[in-house]
Amino acid sequence: MADAKYYIGIDLGGTNMRCIVTDADANELFRSSQPTKSREGVESVLERMAEQIRAATAQAGLKITSVAAGAVAVPGPVDSRKGIIHSAPNMPNWDSIPVSARISEATGIPFYVENDANAAAWGEFRVGEAANRRGNMVLFTLGTGIGGAVILGGKLLEGADGTAGELGHICVREGGRRCGCGADGCVEAYSSATNIVSRFQEYLAAGWRSSLEEMGERLACEDIFTAADGGDTLARHIVDETGYYLGVAAATLANALNPECCLVAGGVAQAGDLILEPMRRECQRRCYTPGRNMEILQASLGSDAGLFGAAGRAIERSRALS
Amino acid sequence: MADAKYYIGIDLGGTNMRCIVTDADANELFRSSQPTKSREGVESVLERMAEQIRAATAQAGLKITSVAAGAVAVPGPVDSRKGIIHSAPNMPNWDSIPVSARISEATGIPFYVENDANAAAWGEFRVGEAANRRGNMVLFTLGTGIGGAVILGGKLLEGADGTAGELGHICVREGGRRCGCGADGCVEAYSSATNIVSRFQEYLAAGWRSSLEEMGERLACEDIFTAADGGDTLARHIVDETGYYLGVAAATLANALNPECCLVAGGVAQAGDLILEPMRRECQRRCYTPGRNMEILQASLGSDAGLFGAAGRAIERSRALS
Repeated sequence: MADAKYYIGIDLGGTNMRCIVTDADANELFRSSQPTKSREGVESVLERMAEQIRAATAQAGLKITSVAAGAVAVPGPVDSRKGIIHSAPNMPNWDSIPVSARISEATGIPFYVENDANAAAWGEFRVGEAANRRGNMVLFTLGTGIGGAVILGGKLLEGADGTAGELGHICVREGGRRCGCGADGCVEAYSSATNIVSRFQEYLAAGWRSSLEEMGERLACEDIFTAADGGDTLARHIVDETGYYLGVAAATLANALNPECCLVAGGVAQAGDLILEPMRRECQRRCYTPGRNMEILQASLGSDAGLFGAAGRAIERSRALS
Repeated sequence: MADAKYYIGIDLGGTNMRCIVTDADANELFRSSQPTKSREGVESVLERMAEQIRAATAQAGLKITSVAAGAVAVPGPVDSRKGIIHSAPNMPNWDSIPVSARISEATGIPFYVENDANAAAWGEFRVGEAANRRGNMVLFTLGTGIGGAVILGGKLLEGADGTAGELGHICVREGGRRCGCGADGCVEAYSSATNIVSRFQEYLAAGWRSSLEEMGERLACEDIFTAADGGDTLARHIVDETGYYLGVAAATLANALNPECCLVAGGVAQAGDLILEPMRRECQRRCYTPGRNMEILQASLGSDAGLFGAAGRAIERSRALS
């Protein structure tokens, strides 16, 4: 396959399945999107994924034989070594599906599976916010839960069992709020979207006042950011605390790993400096070596990080084999 | 230097300066020890270090030209890239000394400088407790303070500025005890030898009783371990807490890095299972993926870890150049 020099990245979401075709430098040549329709079953999704790869390649003006490799980013636990999706949120029956083997078989191209936080970090490192750095970075994805990824020496850290990067379960307040994982005081128990709302509701229940107090169950994380920006005292306090605990977690990583930068991605990261400023302040305060310099930055690829990251991982894995 | 296949490791302590000669597999051929005599000044120490290298090489039956490289492990901040010792505890006037250049000049062999925790981790990985593993490990050194090192993918993690591995400053109890670094709740503020004794004294001052209460200022960390082993309730509580906080820090590393094992070295680690059992228990409880498996083990090289680690780093750096 000496001429095979193009790559496929797929972002498999609960709603849409997006596909990108890139060259060997992760430059975009073509992209397409289709509904995932996960209710039609695993077989149907896999067939349409293979068809999307073939169609996108053709529409990019390429033969399928000129595609060197592809990868799919999935928001759930995967075994990237074996190419298996263990499960996928909002997609019933995705239980230990050998996606690499199935898509390789259907398309004839080597195909890989990646966790979405790992893919996002790789996308930011290759073409996003960390592209001009030497490849020592951590990334938090702040959504319903908190995920993460670690890149060291230009390599994505997989760990001994392929489960590295669970940055949402860094302990930031031992004895504190109970996390979904069962432990107390994980950063996810404070700074995920779900827990930002829960903490707000708890303060209200304890008697704090806020312009949002009539919203009840409809209250969403974005409302809290908007109110904080507008000067609501409780919203501001909650947002400060959110950044504070992220800063405690970031400092632990800065002290242990000394990365160049820490990127913050996902829906909650859209709050920008409202969260990043208290995060930076607390991280700096807890960094051991005074001159230690870890920049804390908002990720730049937004919802495209997984897409570019998947293509980037395909490029990387393809190179590792050659 | 095609025939140069032997290596030198030096452990520079406040009291003694020890030297080892090894082959390319870090097997010991010869060792020697001499007082550091740091009061005689930096120049004197450097001259005697060079002389020790020459003498040890000769006594091992080797010519100095058959030594490929050497390294010294130092218990303080170093710049291992530039080969500079920034400072060394209990050794006045060791202020930004270019040791690599000076020793290379005096002996004719490439010479490197390493932080002692990094050297110890490398020693354990090459010839010690972690020798049969794939090179994903973390190591805590528990002494007066707490140091650490991280090895991932068979490589010592240096970080963006060469300051990775400050595992003593992982936050385990936000808002808790003040650490020497100025932050609150670092694991060093609970589980270093100094802080184990301080916590014990604080409990006594708060009215707890113990068989050690008459010892006053003479109380040392080892007394607390001995009393805990003998059934003293307060000593047992302090030792349990020491392991507990180490377990919180270890879990954070397990979740973020997914290493194969976590080694515990240094004086406090001599307490063995008294500390390791509560540490393992708490770490397991906080590990995110239930099957995640990070063994927590006592380091095996004891006071030789720095010596073998220095030789091992010389081997590694020498290989990286060839």
